[in-house]
Amino acid sequence: MTKPLTQGATIGILGGGQLGRMLSVAASRLGFKTHIFEPGANPPAGHVADQVTTASYEDEAALRGFADTVDVITFEFENIPASALDILETIRPVLPARNALATSQDRIVEKQFLTDLGLDVAPFANVETPDDLNAAIETVGVPSILKTRRFGYDGKGQSRLKSVDQAATAWAELGNTPCVLEGFVDFSHEVSVIGARSQSGEVVCYDPGENVHRDGILHTTTLPAKLNVSQRMDAVILTGKILNALEYVGVMGVELFVTPQGLLVNEIAPRVHNSGHWTQNGCAIDQFEQHIRAVAGWPLGDGQRHSNVVMTNLIGDEVLNVAELSKDASVGLHLYGKSEPKAGRKMGHVNKISPKS
Amino acid sequence: MTKPLTQGATIGILGGGQLGRMLSVAASRLGFKTHIFEPGANPPAGHVADQVTTASYEDEAALRGFADTVDVITFEFENIPASALDILETIRPVLPARNALATSQDRIVEKQFLTDLGLDVAPFANVETPDDLNAAIETVGVPSILKTRRFGYDGKGQSRLKSVDQAATAWAELGNTPCVLEGFVDFSHEVSVIGARSQSGEVVCYDPGENVHRDGILHTTTLPAKLNVSQRMDAVILTGKILNALEYVGVMGVELFVTPQGLLVNEIAPRVHNSGHWTQNGCAIDQFEQHIRAVAGWPLGDGQRHSNVVMTNLIGDEVLNVAELSKDASVGLHLYGKSEPKAGRKMGHVNKISPKS
Repeated sequence: MTKPLTQGATIGILGGGQLGRMLSVAASRLGFKTHIFEPGANPPAGHVADQVTTASYEDEAALRGFADTVDVITFEFENIPASALDILETIRPVLPARNALATSQDRIVEKQFLTDLGLDVAPFANVETPDDLNAAIETVGVPSILKTRRFGYDGKGQSRLKSVDQAATAWAELGNTPCVLEGFVDFSHEVSVIGARSQSGEVVCYDPGENVHRDGILHTTTLPAKLNVSQRMDAVILTGKILNALEYVGVMGVELFVTPQGLLVNEIAPRVHNSGHWTQNGCAIDQFEQHIRAVAGWPLGDGQRHSNVVMTNLIGDEVLNVAELSKDASVGLHLYGKSEPKAGRKMGHVNKISPKS
Repeated sequence: MTKPLTQGATIGILGGGQLGRMLSVAASRLGFKTHIFEPGANPPAGHVADQVTTASYEDEAALRGFADTVDVITFEFENIPASALDILETIRPVLPARNALATSQDRIVEKQFLTDLGLDVAPFANVETPDDLNAAIETVGVPSILKTRRFGYDGKGQSRLKSVDQAATAWAELGNTPCVLEGFVDFSHEVSVIGARSQSGEVVCYDPGENVHRDGILHTTTLPAKLNVSQRMDAVILTGKILNALEYVGVMGVELFVTPQGLLVNEIAPRVHNSGHWTQNGCAIDQFEQHIRAVAGWPLGDGQRHSNVVMTNLIGDEVLNVAELSKDASVGLHLYGKSEPKAGRKMGHVNKISPKS
């Protein structure tokens, strides 16, 4: 446990997208400055940061220069090259620590970790060779879903198998790269828990939200989720189990499938999570501030919710509806300042609040 | 009415203190960038701005350079030199417009404006000469309070008169500068209304908050305020009257004394206001976003409140209690990133929320 950061300290953030942007804003509320490290030009987070370094994760001098100016380092995405972490870690603390990154960067490692913890996941099998693929089809069956072990997000790097004869083609389309074959789960809906663990080991969860996806991308998160009391408790307890097992520091998103047999863990994300954006208009302390508090060595907010919320993502051209959306006074708008509304690109989100039920 | 600003537009903000900082954060939520103009080095608003110009209000080239990079100009304080406005106005719209600045920069002009509108203010008299002072004492009497007409804030530029013989000394101490003598008002408490008017003339007010001052500086604002239904309505109606009379665009703070005879207007501030900070944790759309919406030509939020709030300012060393305050999970912390906690300096504030009553 490091000493809590005090006002004027600088938080280094790897990644300059919308999550880095909202982390930066949250840091400012606590009196911190931020320094964004991002390979791409004109990152959304740079509009609200004290400093920006534009450099690649292979640029050792830039990484060192960045680390020297900050007090702690965190990140908005999990696919940080190990070589970059090797350098950064020698200079400043990186939180959450790399064990969480290593676990969540690889779907097989992640599923094995969850299974070892005694948590339920979908049936799965590793696919690295044509023999593996045949064996996987044998044990997992169809319908099933073939996913790359690494670098998948928002439905990318996935292929659904309806019949056995699709397997080889699907794997080829994914580049014959290491994959996991996941069995289809008979779930009624998906929920996610945004959990946090502080440097002193305190664990806090927000109320689970119910997620609806569209074209593989999160569409809405609704609070409260359809869950009975024991499901709600299970969701929170298993999240705490994951956080504690990793000795995690920061905010984590845990996606769960609700099935008649109980909750299955779909995946975990070692960072603030799109399905936690509702907390910005539903809680005194939102997920972004919660994350900054954790990495800064501060106490956590309690996850208390003051309102019901429906969060809706604005994908691609949907952001052009802003003029209409801005007329609804019960809607908290959050736009990311991205210049071009490309198809499938997350441009912003809205949180519509109503009295708590 | 100018065309509504779209994503990626830049809002220019005169003044880089905490109000500019929180305006900048609100602008980012709507997808805007900000450019801060501030004479002082390392301004708090600069930590969360896209660009900062460090220059004096007499630097014509800097003013022009600043105005050229932005789409609209607003400000966090009312004492902008007229010469700077002369330059800026020729290049970009400045909102709120200068009639509101001219009115609120001078206490006599302000009181005359309010009186002409049919609103009640404390008894007052202009003091520019020794004869004026004698005449003012004659009509207003003691106890009363002598205030400089211009540049007063947070209890500065004021002197209380308990007896007639204190008058000449008090005026000398204020530099024999133009003053107003204000009669003491028998008020039970002070409330303020944060009102806003859009470019299309729509007026919206937040629920009035109840203010307690300490050493001339705002200490707490509590929602809801102690007001009966008709007082609450009067407060909102008179605020709308002021906004409409000025054809105002933006957020304004209106301080009111509650007396047995009705509401008296104490003063108006043509900007976001310390007594409106509670909206950050009490409303979907806070006063800072409301102001940005107005100057950007967007529709306004409706001022709806989802929670009760007590806002408490952290003055000087009080900010050192942050470690303790951060343990209260129902408290929204807002720290300004100022380096030194000087006595009387506003360092941050906290919004403690509870269920709406």
